[in-house]
Amino acid sequence: MGVVHAVLRRLAPRAPVVDLTHDVPPFDVRAGAAALVRAVPHLGPGVVLAVVDPGVGGPRRAVAVEVRAAGGPRWLVGPDNGLLLPAAGVVEGVARAFALDPARVPGAPALPPHPEPGPGPPVTFDGRDLFAPAAAALWQGVPAPALGDEVAAGSLVRQADPVVEEGWAPDGRCWLRAEVTWVDRFGNVQLAAGGAAVPPSVGEADVTVAGHAGHPRTVRRVRTFSDLSPGEAGLLADGNGHLALVAREASAADHLGVAAGTLVEVTW
Amino acid sequence: MGVVHAVLRRLAPRAPVVDLTHDVPPFDVRAGAAALVRAVPHLGPGVVLAVVDPGVGGPRRAVAVEVRAAGGPRWLVGPDNGLLLPAAGVVEGVARAFALDPARVPGAPALPPHPEPGPGPPVTFDGRDLFAPAAAALWQGVPAPALGDEVAAGSLVRQADPVVEEGWAPDGRCWLRAEVTWVDRFGNVQLAAGGAAVPPSVGEADVTVAGHAGHPRTVRRVRTFSDLSPGEAGLLADGNGHLALVAREASAADHLGVAAGTLVEVTW
Amino acid sequence: MGVVHAVLRRLAPRAPVVDLTHDVPPFDVRAGAAALVRAVPHLGPGVVLAVVDPGVGGPRRAVAVEVRAAGGPRWLVGPDNGLLLPAAGVVEGVARAFALDPARVPGAPALPPHPEPGPGPPVTFDGRDLFAPAAAALWQGVPAPALGDEVAAGSLVRQADPVVEEGWAPDGRCWLRAEVTWVDRFGNVQLAAGGAAVPPSVGEADVTVAGHAGHPRTVRRVRTFSDLSPGEAGLLADGNGHLALVAREASAADHLGVAAGTLVEVTW
Repeated sequence: MGVVHAVLRRLAPRAPVVDLTHDVPPFDVRAGAAALVRAVPHLGPGVVLAVVDPGVGGPRRAVAVEVRAAGGPRWLVGPDNGLLLPAAGVVEGVARAFALDPARVPGAPALPPHPEPGPGPPVTFDGRDLFAPAAAALWQGVPAPALGDEVAAGSLVRQADPVVEEGWAPDGRCWLRAEVTWVDRFGNVQLAAGGAAVPPSVGEADVTVAGHAGHPRTVRRVRTFSDLSPGEAGLLADGNGHLALVAREASAADHLGVAAGTLVEVTW
Repeated sequence: MGVVHAVLRRLAPRAPVVDLTHDVPPFDVRAGAAALVRAVPHLGPGVVLAVVDPGVGGPRRAVAVEVRAAGGPRWLVGPDNGLLLPAAGVVEGVARAFALDPARVPGAPALPPHPEPGPGPPVTFDGRDLFAPAAAALWQGVPAPALGDEVAAGSLVRQADPVVEEGWAPDGRCWLRAEVTWVDRFGNVQLAAGGAAVPPSVGEADVTVAGHAGHPRTVRRVRTFSDLSPGEAGLLADGNGHLALVAREASAADHLGVAAGTLVEVTW
Repeated sequence: MGVVHAVLRRLAPRAPVVDLTHDVPPFDVRAGAAALVRAVPHLGPGVVLAVVDPGVGGPRRAVAVEVRAAGGPRWLVGPDNGLLLPAAGVVEGVARAFALDPARVPGAPALPPHPEPGPGPPVTFDGRDLFAPAAAALWQGVPAPALGDEVAAGSLVRQADPVVEEGWAPDGRCWLRAEVTWVDRFGNVQLAAGGAAVPPSVGEADVTVAGHAGHPRTVRRVRTFSDLSPGEAGLLADGNGHLALVAREASAADHLGVAAGTLVEVTW
C-alpha cells in the first residue's frame, strides 16, 4: 500500500519506514497478529503500524498501544481487533493504551473527489486516513493523550489463542495438537507450538493433518534444512523458535495439504 | 523493479523514494492511470515516476509534465501514452510539458554487456534508462528545459475516459452503467462513477454484469463494510470517493466475476 | 522479508536500503545469480546482500566478497553456493573473500522465544541472523577481517554456467541453443546468450523449445517491442543486453510454454 507510505512521508518526512510484510491473507487478523509476533523481536525503537482491518467503519476502536521495551518498538498502532496484543506480549506488555479520535489526529485525510452526501465521509481505509497519521504524529513526538483518550489495557480486544495441546496417549506416546500459524513463501509450515514441544532428541515423529484421511506420515526431527534429503519432509525449530513442518527445497505445505488455521497432530 | 530504485539512489542519493504500486496489470495503461489518480491526492511535493510503457522503443514520446499543485507533486515523468494526464487532472492541470531527449538527460544508462551491433543500443527499458534519470535530475533541481524541448500541453496523448453513463428507464428507475477501473487485492471492485452516483439514501440496487446471463443481483447501498453481514455484497463509496462493489470479508470480484474493464450496470 | 530490513535499520540506521528483487523462485540459486548479474551494473557503491540459501544450517560457508569496481558495489554478502560469483564477474572480479564467523559478526540475532535445547540454536534464517548483520557491519566500516577469516577466491563455490552453444548446421544455417535464465513479470524470456548471438541483420529465425513436439515457430528479429504487431512474438536484444524471446503486449513465456531452465534452440 504505497499510499500509506506516501502519507507517512508527507506527515513525518524524516521517519525511516520499513515494510514488514504485505503477505497477510486478506481479512485474517490472527495471521496478521502472528506476523507481528515474528517481526517485533527484531525491531528497534519506533512506531509499528499494523492494518488488518475487516471491521473498518464499524464500532471497533482505533488504538495506539504503548509497550514496555528496552530498545524495541514503543508504539503499536492499529485497529482494536486483537491484531496488536500478541505482539505486545512478545515485548514486555502494554504500558498504556489510547483510543484514537480522528478529530484529534493531525494530518486529516485528503478529501475524496466525490464526497459522500450522507451523514459524514465514508470510512473504508483507516490505514491511510487514521492509523498512518496517528503513527506519524507519535513518531514526531505528539503526546498520545493529544490523539485520543486513554483506555484500560484490559479493555483491548483479544483474539482466541491458536490451538496448542499436548499429552500422553494410553500407549505412553506423546502427542501434540497445534494450529498452523503461518505458511511462508517456501511452503514451510509454522505451528503454534514452540520448537521444544518436540525435543531434538526425538528421532522421528508421526504427523497427521486434521481432516485428511489415511495413515500418518513419519518424518524426522532435525536441526536444520540440510539435515534432510532433497524433497524430504521434517520437523524442526524454525528461525522464530516455533516448531515447523518443512521440506528440503520443496513446499511442506503443498506436500501435506495444509494452510494457516489447519490443525496438525504430531505423535512420538 | 528494484533496479529503478538503484538508479534513483545512484543519481539522486538524498531523494526519499516511495513505491506507489507494482500491481498494475502488464501493459494496461488505463489501469496505471487510474492507480495514479488514486495516489496523487495523498502525495507531498516531489516527482512522480510512472511506467506502464508497452510502446517503449517506438515513436511514443517520453515526457516530463509539470503540474500546478499547492503542496502536492510538481512533476509527473513517464511515457506520453495517456498514463500521466488523468493524474494531472486530479491536481490542478498541466502547467508545462517537455519531451525528454535521452541525449540531454544526465546519468546515461550503464551500457549492456553485449551491445547491439545495429544502428544504436536497443531501447526496451526506459523506466530504468530514461525516466528514472530524468526524475532524478528534476528532483536534483535540473531545469526541465535542459532535459528536452517544451511541447504543447494539448499535444499530450489522452486515453479514452472510462465508461460512465446514467439515465432514467421508462419505468422511472435510475440506471448507471460504469466501467470497472480497479480490483484491489481484497476483491473490491472500483467503478468509474463517483460514490454519489448511487446516493446513500438508496436502500437497495440491482447489479448486472455485462456479458453475464441470469437475473440481476440485488445488493444494499451501505456506508461501510461493517454495515454488511459477513460474505454479503454491497455498494458503497470507497476511500477514493468512487462507487464500489464490495463484499464483507470476501472478494466481490470473485463473486461477480468481474475484472478491470468490465462494464457493470446498476439500477434502482 | 521486512524483518531483514528491520535488522539492517537497527544495526546501520543511516544506510539507505534498496530492495533489488523478491521474485527469485524459491531455492533457485542460479536464478538468483542471474538476477544479481542484471542488477549490479546499475548499482552505486555499497554492500549487496543476497539470500537464496537452500543449504542454510549445513556446511556451506557464509561469505563476504570484496569486488573491484569503480563506483559500483564494493561488497557482496551471502551464502557461498554460487549465488554471488557471477555478479562479481560483471564488475571486475573478486578482490578478497572472507568466510563469515557468526561469533565475530556484531549484532547477534535476537534469541528466539523458545530456544532449542540441543547443542546450539537452530540455524534456519541466516539472511536475518548473519548476512544482514554482516552487511550492516561492512556498511558501518567494520573491517572485513574482523568478521571472519580470509579465504582464497578460487575456493568460492561456482554454479554450472547456463547453457549456451552455437554452430553451423550441415545445410549452412546457424543454430544457437541457450538456456532460459529469466522470465520477467511480463512474460519476456531472457536467454543465456548475448543479443548479438542472433544479429539484428537476421530477418527471421526459427525457434524450437526443447521437449515440445511440433514444428518450429518462425519469429522476426527486431530492435524493440513496437517493431512487432500486437500479440506477435519476436527476438530482440533486451535491456540487459541478452537475447530475449518477447511478444508485444503479451507473454512470450505463456505462448511458448517455457520457464527458467528451459532449453531453447534458434536457427536462421
